[in-house]
Amino acid sequence: MTLAQSVLSGDRLALARLLTLVENNTPEGREALDELFPHAGRAHLVGVTGSPGSGKSSLVNQIALHYRKADSPRRVAIVAVDPTSPFTGGAVLGDRVRMRDLSGDSGVFIRSMATRGSLGGLAQATAGVVQVFDAAGFELVLIETVGAGQAEVDIARLAHTTLVVEAPGMGDEIQAIKAGILEIADILVINKADHPGADNTERALKSMLDLAHPVEKVFRHHGQAMTVSAPEAAHDPALWIPPIVRTVATEGTGVAELVKSISAHAEHLRRSGDWSKRERTRLETELDLMLTQTLAAQFRAQLSESRYDEIVDQLTKRTLSPWEAVKSLMNGNKS
Amino acid sequence: MTLAQSVLSGDRLALARLLTLVENNTPEGREALDELFPHAGRAHLVGVTGSPGSGKSSLVNQIALHYRKADSPRRVAIVAVDPTSPFTGGAVLGDRVRMRDLSGDSGVFIRSMATRGSLGGLAQATAGVVQVFDAAGFELVLIETVGAGQAEVDIARLAHTTLVVEAPGMGDEIQAIKAGILEIADILVINKADHPGADNTERALKSMLDLAHPVEKVFRHHGQAMTVSAPEAAHDPALWIPPIVRTVATEGTGVAELVKSISAHAEHLRRSGDWSKRERTRLETELDLMLTQTLAAQFRAQLSESRYDEIVDQLTKRTLSPWEAVKSLMNGNKS
Repeated sequence: MTLAQSVLSGDRLALARLLTLVENNTPEGREALDELFPHAGRAHLVGVTGSPGSGKSSLVNQIALHYRKADSPRRVAIVAVDPTSPFTGGAVLGDRVRMRDLSGDSGVFIRSMATRGSLGGLAQATAGVVQVFDAAGFELVLIETVGAGQAEVDIARLAHTTLVVEAPGMGDEIQAIKAGILEIADILVINKADHPGADNTERALKSMLDLAHPVEKVFRHHGQAMTVSAPEAAHDPALWIPPIVRTVATEGTGVAELVKSISAHAEHLRRSGDWSKRERTRLETELDLMLTQTLAAQFRAQLSESRYDEIVDQLTKRTLSPWEAVKSLMNGNKS
Repeated sequence: MTLAQSVLSGDRLALARLLTLVENNTPEGREALDELFPHAGRAHLVGVTGSPGSGKSSLVNQIALHYRKADSPRRVAIVAVDPTSPFTGGAVLGDRVRMRDLSGDSGVFIRSMATRGSLGGLAQATAGVVQVFDAAGFELVLIETVGAGQAEVDIARLAHTTLVVEAPGMGDEIQAIKAGILEIADILVINKADHPGADNTERALKSMLDLAHPVEKVFRHHGQAMTVSAPEAAHDPALWIPPIVRTVATEGTGVAELVKSISAHAEHLRRSGDWSKRERTRLETELDLMLTQTLAAQFRAQLSESRYDEIVDQLTKRTLSPWEAVKSLMNGNKS
């Protein structure tokens, strides 16, 4: 039995081992991913992003618990991505804290990812890990990213449904940063909604939504730019106006409503055809990345180390520009 | 006279125009970059990163002002990178606020960069913009990045000297995020040092520094792993222990000391040979990226659109895995 087959048969140890192989981008991991690929494509991928301190982790735990406690419980995987932590300490601690709520439940699997590697590498490893969970039969995969940078946004783009989590009392600068992230939000969550300032946060989010959303959505669906207000747009079945949901994750308040919004969004995606559109875009991105890497690796393999070093020497002396260096390397390689 | 020549002659309008061309990655911009390349390599590139709310922008302004008011003033460029803002509004507003302090000074040039494009694209555009300033004779280029993600870290890696700015009263989660960023800090700044909690922040930073730095540095310089404490390490001229500098940017307090640290770091880099090592690494990264892009573009140009679409179709049906798709495309292209 191959490792991929063990994973498909529900072997948790094999799953854990494969995740490590995929995270480290080993040949064995890539091979298993290939074998699992036909079995993936069924899970609902939900990205959760937002500022540090918004309580994302607690919220993700609560969402998982809610799905586990349902009448027909679903298998849930949590992928916690922290691109800024080079120490595994934080991630490991995170897992331990989570364990208290979800330990002993074989329908839940939690994986923390932290890496020193390049950002592209992290996004790719995350995509691989998500695919493994998908193929292994996890029906819901929660992808949690720390922070509010473009990196996190890129990783969240893996998802079918993206939650952006806010908490009351964020400063102005943080609000401004959020403007970029709002664009990718399918559902907005105000967590810690029992804290003072929740009404202000909701007002701020609403006005940013009005600014960011209707035009873009209508433009996309009808092929021409026009402004509609949220109530008007709500009558168009092809449109999704991101709802704002209030939660208090530490007490579980609002989580049921949030889960309803998540299901409603999945339904909307399937009805509008956006589900398969997002799948296609995602697979195309993955293909392009893999193709580029393969081309680069192939090129480097047939390039002599001394020739490369010589070119870099000329670069550092500035007797050759980077573009001239590329042309020189590509010509030299042809001959 | 070419655009590059106009820039070299000190024409500010030509400079502004070229920056836009480079930011948009136009052929004309790339050509000018090539022409300017032999003239670059002299500027001191200083990255400034840190959390939103730490007061980075004010600090960057103050550093610039300090250099301008020196007995032999240096020409200063500021590149403000905001990867999360898709709206130019924020960036433009930022420029306007900055203008008050630095307007009318022809020895200062401020450029804000915000883009919807890919992160790799932003890092590349930033590298291009920095090179233009360098060639145009700006002796100090301050590269300011918003946020604390890996993206910002990557952009800050362009720099010879990286400042990480903290402010008192950051939450625990933010401190944890900082752990990753500390690794790249050459100088730590506690801005808003007049706020309560500055002592706590300094203690926290010191203990994180002890954890993160000496082993790694000693390992790197002597080729073997051993732990030394900061005072011991301070006797080794090849080592740089990041100093912690307190500032109150709004009042200019501590800026003179900070500028001294920046100069001391530049001196250290030149003395230890790290300056040219960093240059080499940077140019190699740039070359690899350009090479990869050229290879990918060349490959895509000779690939028929229908063949590509057909492969993506098979991917979405999951009858072909991404790896099989790559192999198929590469074989098909050869024949």
